[in-house]
Amino acid sequence: MTSPAPGTVDLARLQEVLDGPWAEVRNAHRKHLDARFLPVYGETGDQARERVTGLLTELPVELGIGAAFPTEYGGASDVGGSIIASEMLAQVDLSLMVKAGVQWGLFGGAVAALGTRRHHDAYLRDIISGQILGCFAMTETGHGSDVQQLRTTCTYDPRTQTFDLHTPHEAARKDYIGNAARDGRMAVVFAQLISGGERHGVHAWLVPIRDEQGNPLPGVTIGDSGPKAGLHGVDNGRLSFDHVSVPREMLLDRYGQVAADGTYSSPIENDSRRFFTMLGTLVRGRISVGGAASAAAKSALTIAVRYGDTRRQFTTPDADREVLLNDYLAHQRKLLPALATTYALHFAQAELVAALHEVQGGDGPVDEHRQRELESRAAGLKAAQTWHASRTIQTCREACGGAGYLSENRLPGLRADTDVFTTFEGDNTVLLQLVAKGLLTGYRDEFGSLDGWGRASFVAEQVREMVLERTAARSLIQQLISAVPGRDEEVAVTDRGWQLTIFEDREKHLLEGAIRRLRNGATSKQDRPFDIFNDVQDHVLTAAAAHIDRVTLEAFVAAIEETADPAVRALLSRVCDLYALSVIEAHKGWLLEHGRLTPARSKAITAVVNGLLKELRPQMRTLVDGFAIPDVWLDAAILREEPGRQDAMAAHDSAATSA
Amino acid sequence: MTSPAPGTVDLARLQEVLDGPWAEVRNAHRKHLDARFLPVYGETGDQARERVTGLLTELPVELGIGAAFPTEYGGASDVGGSIIASEMLAQVDLSLMVKAGVQWGLFGGAVAALGTRRHHDAYLRDIISGQILGCFAMTETGHGSDVQQLRTTCTYDPRTQTFDLHTPHEAARKDYIGNAARDGRMAVVFAQLISGGERHGVHAWLVPIRDEQGNPLPGVTIGDSGPKAGLHGVDNGRLSFDHVSVPREMLLDRYGQVAADGTYSSPIENDSRRFFTMLGTLVRGRISVGGAASAAAKSALTIAVRYGDTRRQFTTPDADREVLLNDYLAHQRKLLPALATTYALHFAQAELVAALHEVQGGDGPVDEHRQRELESRAAGLKAAQTWHASRTIQTCREACGGAGYLSENRLPGLRADTDVFTTFEGDNTVLLQLVAKGLLTGYRDEFGSLDGWGRASFVAEQVREMVLERTAARSLIQQLISAVPGRDEEVAVTDRGWQLTIFEDREKHLLEGAIRRLRNGATSKQDRPFDIFNDVQDHVLTAAAAHIDRVTLEAFVAAIEETADPAVRALLSRVCDLYALSVIEAHKGWLLEHGRLTPARSKAITAVVNGLLKELRPQMRTLVDGFAIPDVWLDAAILREEPGRQDAMAAHDSAATSA
Repeated sequence: MTSPAPGTVDLARLQEVLDGPWAEVRNAHRKHLDARFLPVYGETGDQARERVTGLLTELPVELGIGAAFPTEYGGASDVGGSIIASEMLAQVDLSLMVKAGVQWGLFGGAVAALGTRRHHDAYLRDIISGQILGCFAMTETGHGSDVQQLRTTCTYDPRTQTFDLHTPHEAARKDYIGNAARDGRMAVVFAQLISGGERHGVHAWLVPIRDEQGNPLPGVTIGDSGPKAGLHGVDNGRLSFDHVSVPREMLLDRYGQVAADGTYSSPIENDSRRFFTMLGTLVRGRISVGGAASAAAKSALTIAVRYGDTRRQFTTPDADREVLLNDYLAHQRKLLPALATTYALHFAQAELVAALHEVQGGDGPVDEHRQRELESRAAGLKAAQTWHASRTIQTCREACGGAGYLSENRLPGLRADTDVFTTFEGDNTVLLQLVAKGLLTGYRDEFGSLDGWGRASFVAEQVREMVLERTAARSLIQQLISAVPGRDEEVAVTDRGWQLTIFEDREKHLLEGAIRRLRNGATSKQDRPFDIFNDVQDHVLTAAAAHIDRVTLEAFVAAIEETADPAVRALLSRVCDLYALSVIEAHKGWLLEHGRLTPARSKAITAVVNGLLKELRPQMRTLVDGFAIPDVWLDAAILREEPGRQDAMAAHDSAATSA
Repeated sequence: MTSPAPGTVDLARLQEVLDGPWAEVRNAHRKHLDARFLPVYGETGDQARERVTGLLTELPVELGIGAAFPTEYGGASDVGGSIIASEMLAQVDLSLMVKAGVQWGLFGGAVAALGTRRHHDAYLRDIISGQILGCFAMTETGHGSDVQQLRTTCTYDPRTQTFDLHTPHEAARKDYIGNAARDGRMAVVFAQLISGGERHGVHAWLVPIRDEQGNPLPGVTIGDSGPKAGLHGVDNGRLSFDHVSVPREMLLDRYGQVAADGTYSSPIENDSRRFFTMLGTLVRGRISVGGAASAAAKSALTIAVRYGDTRRQFTTPDADREVLLNDYLAHQRKLLPALATTYALHFAQAELVAALHEVQGGDGPVDEHRQRELESRAAGLKAAQTWHASRTIQTCREACGGAGYLSENRLPGLRADTDVFTTFEGDNTVLLQLVAKGLLTGYRDEFGSLDGWGRASFVAEQVREMVLERTAARSLIQQLISAVPGRDEEVAVTDRGWQLTIFEDREKHLLEGAIRRLRNGATSKQDRPFDIFNDVQDHVLTAAAAHIDRVTLEAFVAAIEETADPAVRALLSRVCDLYALSVIEAHKGWLLEHGRLTPARSKAITAVVNGLLKELRPQMRTLVDGFAIPDVWLDAAILREEPGRQDAMAAHDSAATSA
């Protein structure tokens, strides 16, 4: 290893690096949100919903999720800040975060992005203030991922100048809709637009669903999705429409207009392309969910690491020292690679938020290629972060033993509340496919966004020779890679350039292999497009995951490069080693199969990882403290009790008794 | 592949094989337990506890968990049957299963196993009938795994002929105790026995904790562990004792007696050995938990597979067929290896239950070596089954998308209720260490049972040259292994003998490596016993896991050998291939590192696994139907609604509309 061992780190410097450019938003939340905003255990579902709804309007607006709205309506025109606000809220209460995300991100965000000035003038202020609570009604019972094929219809009648919104059958009812079961007064409803007997694809309408007294409006049937695994404070429900009349001007018509006589027009001619452009404006939801998942993982890791630093498992024979849970190699193997991956994903997410802010934050038109890349990155990092959070919180809960199963120790709530993140705002497997398709077609497939494999329009011929797109710090990474000497065996496995090469090679080889297999498949069974893709699906998903791994490592490397403080830099460098080598260790089978690792080098990596664990053991507490989660937010009884300390005292007592 | 492709299977034949020798117990549960016994969602904790307690006494006794009690007290002297009853109850309601397990398995089981005739005569009938509800009070707040070091004391005073039961400090309070918070009238309390100023190690007393009105008795403080991730129907609580007087005869004195004058005597001289003998009689708890976890995984798989057989994800371009979720390779990759592993663990569990029944079911003395092996097997399979269940139920929940997050679809409850299984009845990581120590010392380390690494008495010199112990069907397995031709590359990866060799080699090599490293460590740093073991902890845990893999595969092979029906046999053989090759695929990194696989062969395995998925796709439904879980027990709204069908109808409607 070439870099010096990490020394004592100034926590404030570490926090500065992690907090990044929106430190002000983070600190406002840390200061403003006290114990009243925390989850309560043992409530009924009704109590949880009532409490969370009550808290919603007490959240900060211009430093909150509403920051993304235009300044003129009460927002702060700060897209990046609104994502950071979601991350912070996720460490307070995930129900509150999701409820706020539904209200301001999905519902309000759709009105802002898909509506035009008359909708903005009429509704945005009340939406931002929470006067009008609303729903984002896209998903249907029979259609989760294939949103382009929604069954709800909205048919224009020029005689009445109204639309007829209708749910044709049970499978077309809107399902899992947040804010629907209890609070929503309006909903942005997605449906197939039909005018003059012609279909124009999916559009959105702003539709009142309840009257002032909270009763469903005529023709609107509202159901309750009932108890869920978590997120008890969010009132998910079901909406059905029985020929509900919707005034013409309630069509959110930025991307498609219907004239009084029923003539349809749109700046985007192709239905699919228009639909995915509409969806693209909503990419923030996915970025918020990914960030929220990582934020929850940080809370869980903080609890588990602090607990493991006071708790003993067995009496040890080495009388001269106290052995704590965190001293066990098996415990370090559970927590430290998870912590290193959390750091890596933190920097990847920070880079993504900055990119979103740049692409969508301005007033000018959005660059389409950059938007596509952003969507792909958002999809990939959402999948990576939500799966990582599920696994990590689970690991933390097990690392705390029986205590981890009690609600008072926070982990059950973190686990159950984040669980749905792997399948909502896009099912993770479907999102990985989206990433893969973007890579395989160079983002040229205009129908790609949420598509399955079978669409005939995506044919294998479209795939191109691939060129890896660099993320941040292009020149730095190229420089590190170029500096690697020719012969692998001479390079330390902690050489950053070598690690980058391995990640890059793996992605490239997997993508090229997928391209080859898709081409061969297309030649041999052209009549079965589904089979062509399905036979390669596992390969293609692995390629997408490898891509996300590379993007994540490169973001980590870029963040280290930007870190000025030498001690923080040295620590991050070690954590980056652990991240990179954990990923390499996890994929050593593939790397050995493909001659990227020799058996001897592969075995050496396991030893180096164990060495890194030993080296980082004294820094575990620092690493979680760097997340700067206020004690009041952690709210875990095991941290208050510090049983290890008590027990250490007890050991003295008992020694005295038996003496 | 040499065996013929599986044809049409007679479900009744498959069920017969899976039901095994206790089919009568299984069928009694299937028949007796109707919808009243199922979980209810949206209840408060108090409502759940009240309901579950009410149902407890309606469970069958002689065909239930109580079957293990002696016939003379109302049981059926059927140890195996009581485990099977737990498995069945786990498919009905896991709270009810755990509540029953606490009452009859832990509490009643401890009175039966650790008490003597006067305790049996006085209490067993009322315990079996549920007249006396009780607790098993072992775990303390400050001590999860290291139960030998419990801090609660029970000190004999010959003047009053009573014991003084005392909780010296907060960390010594009994914690997570089932039946404590609400219902328990008595508790089997584990504490350090002190008599005549001398300590005699951990013993158990039968102690009343509440009066007839349900109020805590003087000196007993009862707390509530509060809301948990799951198992809402179980009243876990905390018990503290402030110098509670316990009559001498309430010591459960089968393994240690205190005479009126305070003289201590025991058939087992060594404190540790006595303690682990006492614990050993309670091995049933772990076997029940492992079986219950697998049973819950079967429920989850049945729901996910049936849902995936009706649900479509995307519209496909192949007009001549309907593509369902289960048709996607990625979906098969999620569900089918999990299903194959569930089959493998089913047969390993069945073998374990039969061994338990044989070892503990008779009247004669228990063979110590066999008992040790049984404990080790129970520990290993408990860890394997509970982790497998956590992962599998999670996979199933994600495979059902948003629907999988709703309580009405059963998966959230299955996931949350079984979650604690990975850390209760022995933390899984600690259990794997126990398995490893048994293997490394040939079960000769008498202090091994629940020990951590640091105990000075377990020194590296104890490790021996190892000989693999065969499981069932010794000769058959030797025969299969011997039949493998010399050169690997000539053998199909579906050759059972080759698969067995790979599993066996891996275990042997890992164990031998661990022995070597422990010896070297012992030579180089004899003064640091903790470090010796800690440096090798990951290696040793991997060896234990490899052992369990081998045991599981051998049990599957033995079960196939005993299957007469050719179609069932052919199907099981394919499922066994998938299990074996999935495990090999998961460990291909290690196998390549150690020259057990060539890169070409390793790649081929991935292709063969994908081929098996395709082949088993049409059998997915059969494989879950073989578990024979009554429809009423599955109780998932998505199975009742069958949205795929509705949607298929809807597609016709909508085609008609747009035409």
